[in-house]
Amino acid sequence: MYAMDGKVSASLGDIEALAIQCLVEAGASQAQATAVARNIAACERDDCKSHGLFRLPGYLKSLLSGKVTGDARPVIRELTPIIVHLDAAGGFAPLAHEVACEDIAKRARRFGMAALTITNCYHFTALWTELEPLAATGLVAFAFRNGISRVAQHGGRTPVFGTNPMAFAWPRRGKPPFIFDFATSEIARGEIQLRQRNGESIPLGWAVDKEGQPTTDPAIGLAGAQLTFGGHKGSALATMIELLSGPLIGEMLSSEALRADNGDGGPPRGGELLIVLDPTRFHDHAKPEAAIDHAEVLFEQLQSDPGARLAGDRRYAARARNSAGLVTISPKLIEELRGLAGPRTKAMLDMIALPGRGAGQIAP
Amino acid sequence: MYAMDGKVSASLGDIEALAIQCLVEAGASQAQATAVARNIAACERDDCKSHGLFRLPGYLKSLLSGKVTGDARPVIRELTPIIVHLDAAGGFAPLAHEVACEDIAKRARRFGMAALTITNCYHFTALWTELEPLAATGLVAFAFRNGISRVAQHGGRTPVFGTNPMAFAWPRRGKPPFIFDFATSEIARGEIQLRQRNGESIPLGWAVDKEGQPTTDPAIGLAGAQLTFGGHKGSALATMIELLSGPLIGEMLSSEALRADNGDGGPPRGGELLIVLDPTRFHDHAKPEAAIDHAEVLFEQLQSDPGARLAGDRRYAARARNSAGLVTISPKLIEELRGLAGPRTKAMLDMIALPGRGAGQIAP
Repeated sequence: MYAMDGKVSASLGDIEALAIQCLVEAGASQAQATAVARNIAACERDDCKSHGLFRLPGYLKSLLSGKVTGDARPVIRELTPIIVHLDAAGGFAPLAHEVACEDIAKRARRFGMAALTITNCYHFTALWTELEPLAATGLVAFAFRNGISRVAQHGGRTPVFGTNPMAFAWPRRGKPPFIFDFATSEIARGEIQLRQRNGESIPLGWAVDKEGQPTTDPAIGLAGAQLTFGGHKGSALATMIELLSGPLIGEMLSSEALRADNGDGGPPRGGELLIVLDPTRFHDHAKPEAAIDHAEVLFEQLQSDPGARLAGDRRYAARARNSAGLVTISPKLIEELRGLAGPRTKAMLDMIALPGRGAGQIAP
Repeated sequence: MYAMDGKVSASLGDIEALAIQCLVEAGASQAQATAVARNIAACERDDCKSHGLFRLPGYLKSLLSGKVTGDARPVIRELTPIIVHLDAAGGFAPLAHEVACEDIAKRARRFGMAALTITNCYHFTALWTELEPLAATGLVAFAFRNGISRVAQHGGRTPVFGTNPMAFAWPRRGKPPFIFDFATSEIARGEIQLRQRNGESIPLGWAVDKEGQPTTDPAIGLAGAQLTFGGHKGSALATMIELLSGPLIGEMLSSEALRADNGDGGPPRGGELLIVLDPTRFHDHAKPEAAIDHAEVLFEQLQSDPGARLAGDRRYAARARNSAGLVTISPKLIEELRGLAGPRTKAMLDMIALPGRGAGQIAP
């Protein structure tokens, strides 16, 4: 980790090590901390900053407040030969996914399709990080997750949905998978908060006031309700995701998760449903890989259209850029972490921000 | 069927009988004709006019041109214990669905989840008609279908996707199911054609010209490409649907279906994927119906929000209105059918449009 000219640069390994140290000092088990830290480093690697180190303070707050069980051990069990339930036991999502990934992949290969339900879990990660390991082994996968109520349905005014993201992954041969991952809200809540902090207005269509009227004032929008993307269609998707990751799997609705949350700024409790498909089992061609080969015709059409871009391409370009080098951390984030850190981490962070300190390597 | 003051009114039974007679005279087997006619009558019942009798001329044209096999017998077979393939044998979708519905429901109940792939099928129906029978027996279901290339990806200019609809159904106790069914194009192609016919402009965001520039001219938009709804998110969904209903199941891409189509104005060839879930198998509550009960909390929240409406509510209201009474048929449509009809149907249609004829019942 390097500090120079007021900027902090770090290797991905440094980021992972820093995150582990912070999390363990805040009460996480080594297993929970390592899984979260790996996830954070993967997001930094892909310039997915909103789910990188930026999330670490929230993770720490939820451990310090006692909301999340730091040493939770996820428990996996079979509901049917193709449906597996993972009880995250009050811990974070990344370890839950690590524990379940191989099991669900095996069932999907055997039957052609399998589902994973995750409950009692605190989720702060990007969904693409959860689907990529499955797609990397040749599987197709969907993920659906609810959150805490912030978003009104189309035409409505009451926050009912979380930002309710969904993701979909399709494997490609010799290339990183096609993965999209989007919130069904028009915009991330953080984006509205950012406009508020900067004294800027928000575009119409992001949020409504408490009476359901359009607003360009971020404060009024935050007090009212965010809107879904794509009008009634996005609203229908948000409803579907709410049903699949709440009632279907025996978890809370986003409105119930909001009431249950202690407001510590960490991840809310939320359910998640994964459906995993083996693309060699949905047809009976002589060549099992026919589906994957055929899909390349589509990807070629999409990529040859000027001005367009495949979902995920920007992340993979960032990955190629960042994997060998250093990524930048905001000094403000370092300050925030210092406020939450245990003594060992604090001592290390103090060294980074030493005023007037020139270039130089700092542990870990 | 009644003609009065230039308007034609018909009972749902009359519509079904008329459609069967037209289809059989155009070469359909009784089984194919009955399944299509039932579907058309169900759409008229729900004021889903775009998929009602309005579609009958297209069905007839595709039989008369020889594109569709009028006496096709769908063949069902197992790919895995939870994946079933239905070869529609070059026939229409409604019979295919009738044949497969019970089998797929049984597998979903046994394992908790099952999938149906449909290939070699000509599809002109609304997806909600296919999911409602499953939801009526307590099952949750998704449907995904591609079409013929009309729609460009976000930021692009080349038609790649069909209007690629998806649908989702969730059962409710003692109430009709929650079902949404939407195209991933911003708007139906017919809506742009209607504006063109009326000499009206189209809003920005519906279509682009051949260079990918926004247009308000319907003719330029039709020659260029339609756009997906919801920007890059809708575009991502359209890609997913293209993959699931084409390469995954061994069917054509929308671009391939466009090339293969004879342009007769009837349904294009297209693949379809259904995924069916038994909501009593995704959790282990003491009460198997816990998921359905819990979902009602969400529906109550959504329905109590002023100004908002549940997907499907408008259709169910129309159903209540129309089931006992008569629905109206456009005289223009009667004329169009006359041009395509066989001698027996023609004789009957001639009677309806008899100029100066007063009110009175007409066969069938």
